[in-house]
Amino acid sequence: MVIGAGLIAEAGRHLPELPGTERAFVVADRSVADRWLEPLSRGLEPRGLGMVFLGVPSGEEAKSLPVYGALVHQLATQEAHRDDVVVGLGGGAVGDLAGFVASTFMRGLPLVQIPTTLTAQVDAAVGGKTGVNLPEGKNLVGTFYQPRVVLCDTTTLSSLADRDFRSGLAEVAKYALAIDPDLLAELERDPRAVIAREPEALERLVARCVAAKGRVVAGDERDHGTRLHLNYGHTLGHALERLDSFSGRTHGEAVATGMVFAARLAEARGLARDRDLTGRTVRLLSALGLEPGGTLPATDRVLAAFRMDKKWSGGARFVLLEDVGRPVVVNDVPDDEIEGILRAMGATG
Amino acid sequence: MVIGAGLIAEAGRHLPELPGTERAFVVADRSVADRWLEPLSRGLEPRGLGMVFLGVPSGEEAKSLPVYGALVHQLATQEAHRDDVVVGLGGGAVGDLAGFVASTFMRGLPLVQIPTTLTAQVDAAVGGKTGVNLPEGKNLVGTFYQPRVVLCDTTTLSSLADRDFRSGLAEVAKYALAIDPDLLAELERDPRAVIAREPEALERLVARCVAAKGRVVAGDERDHGTRLHLNYGHTLGHALERLDSFSGRTHGEAVATGMVFAARLAEARGLARDRDLTGRTVRLLSALGLEPGGTLPATDRVLAAFRMDKKWSGGARFVLLEDVGRPVVVNDVPDDEIEGILRAMGATG
Repeated sequence: MVIGAGLIAEAGRHLPELPGTERAFVVADRSVADRWLEPLSRGLEPRGLGMVFLGVPSGEEAKSLPVYGALVHQLATQEAHRDDVVVGLGGGAVGDLAGFVASTFMRGLPLVQIPTTLTAQVDAAVGGKTGVNLPEGKNLVGTFYQPRVVLCDTTTLSSLADRDFRSGLAEVAKYALAIDPDLLAELERDPRAVIAREPEALERLVARCVAAKGRVVAGDERDHGTRLHLNYGHTLGHALERLDSFSGRTHGEAVATGMVFAARLAEARGLARDRDLTGRTVRLLSALGLEPGGTLPATDRVLAAFRMDKKWSGGARFVLLEDVGRPVVVNDVPDDEIEGILRAMGATG
Repeated sequence: MVIGAGLIAEAGRHLPELPGTERAFVVADRSVADRWLEPLSRGLEPRGLGMVFLGVPSGEEAKSLPVYGALVHQLATQEAHRDDVVVGLGGGAVGDLAGFVASTFMRGLPLVQIPTTLTAQVDAAVGGKTGVNLPEGKNLVGTFYQPRVVLCDTTTLSSLADRDFRSGLAEVAKYALAIDPDLLAELERDPRAVIAREPEALERLVARCVAAKGRVVAGDERDHGTRLHLNYGHTLGHALERLDSFSGRTHGEAVATGMVFAARLAEARGLARDRDLTGRTVRLLSALGLEPGGTLPATDRVLAAFRMDKKWSGGARFVLLEDVGRPVVVNDVPDDEIEGILRAMGATG
């Protein structure tokens, strides 16, 4: 993993040895391609690699089996070979899709991830998860597959829409609350440099979150045990994203709501040592420009959505905080307890 | 791996510990299901597992992205969970498909392989390869994924059509010629017990081929180096299978032709120590009821088909024998050399 400003335009310098590689197949949506394909092409030129652009729809729509099928078909007709490299250039969705393609075409091509959103840089590009969605739920199909290198070019963050940038800050808040109390203290003290997207502040922020994730993932490659801690705020977050009535919100807004829910649940259970965990969570999110909550779907619909979660195994499972930086996994939370918190947050039913 | 007669009807005894598993999702085609689903259901009953049948087309038609998509959709709508098990019951195609489904649904469900053809028992079910075909070529999409257990019930071989059984014998011949000279000597001495499908002979034969493959695969999980030796006869075999004009032949017939080609090429190069390698190959195949060759496609079409091979990397690559049991990988065989051998075998062009 390399983190810094201007990496795309000098990509060739940061790629690993790729003996036999003739072409780079770059998966990206139209708007990312318009902005970054040309610099990337210049960056790859010194390595003598041909570049082939594989266009995909933007956002979650890219993560579908039909789009996946179209990509592997493209690779086959273009006669891609085992040494050719697949590059995921874009947000988390493109990275997940490109990773699934790379991990399965000819049973595995070298993969390079170039995440261009804050969410993807701090989160999706580390840990080796790939995936596409099915109509029944997110990431229901995928693999574990490590990229050869991840290039986090912080220059890409300056051109993000405010809302997309803030969505990434929800993942940052997750690391601060659940994994890295020092980061939390810094953000509480002064969030301005981050909000203003100062290049040095962003580089430090991304490096810090990546390091936090790396510590959690190390030794836990297969999604058991501690890796679950990275799902802080995501049990409810994913459920909300599955519900039409919550559509239009960003992933970050859903996760922010999930973290407030988790804080309330931890307090209600007497688990949280900090009696103001919910207040502290809400204040941090507000300082980062996030407004968790809003109108929630009816409780019975949320409960039904939980049951489609990959992590479901006979009961609802949540990551809760005993204190900031001290996550624990809690299984089999009763439905009425969940309903109580949801109602307290304004849900009907 | 368990090899023996009657294993399906007592399957529950041979499954590994599967804590949390509620259901077995059994991928099979209609005719295999008609014959073996009921015994399998009885076999699983003592383990308290529910059984769900997922029907697929027979043969290579099952190995397609649309069929794959239908299966993962089924798993999602039936709310399969991470602890549920996927069972591949049938020939190599069903095993490859079921393996790809198991390796990718929710990023990996436990997999049990129950191969019911000789080809699948001696070959496809060991080594952890999964895959589906694209219109452009075989196995262009897939993963490396180990089954929890492989049950080789030799009872299933007694009901195979003669032609399918003989197709499996081509893979047996591959092991005998390329890996296990003792097996070759035995088959040359007396092939009758195998041809007559005597239960004990089959159990020994399958165990022997599985062991040979196991030795080759051990330490070579990712398809580099020695694992290529298992492709003896398959470079031409796969190319022939890709050509319409060769359709109607079995995989075994294509591989048998590929082994005769490889023997001729090794002799022509002065590589083969045994100056009668081709004659010995043809005699073995005939004794096993296989007739390699037949009408070959035109040489230019065969050469074009080579270029679509996954193993292609800038030049045609063949496994050749210095002697029986002594395979070597030969890269960059010139087109005119290939054409010469093909013409000597009766191809036009």
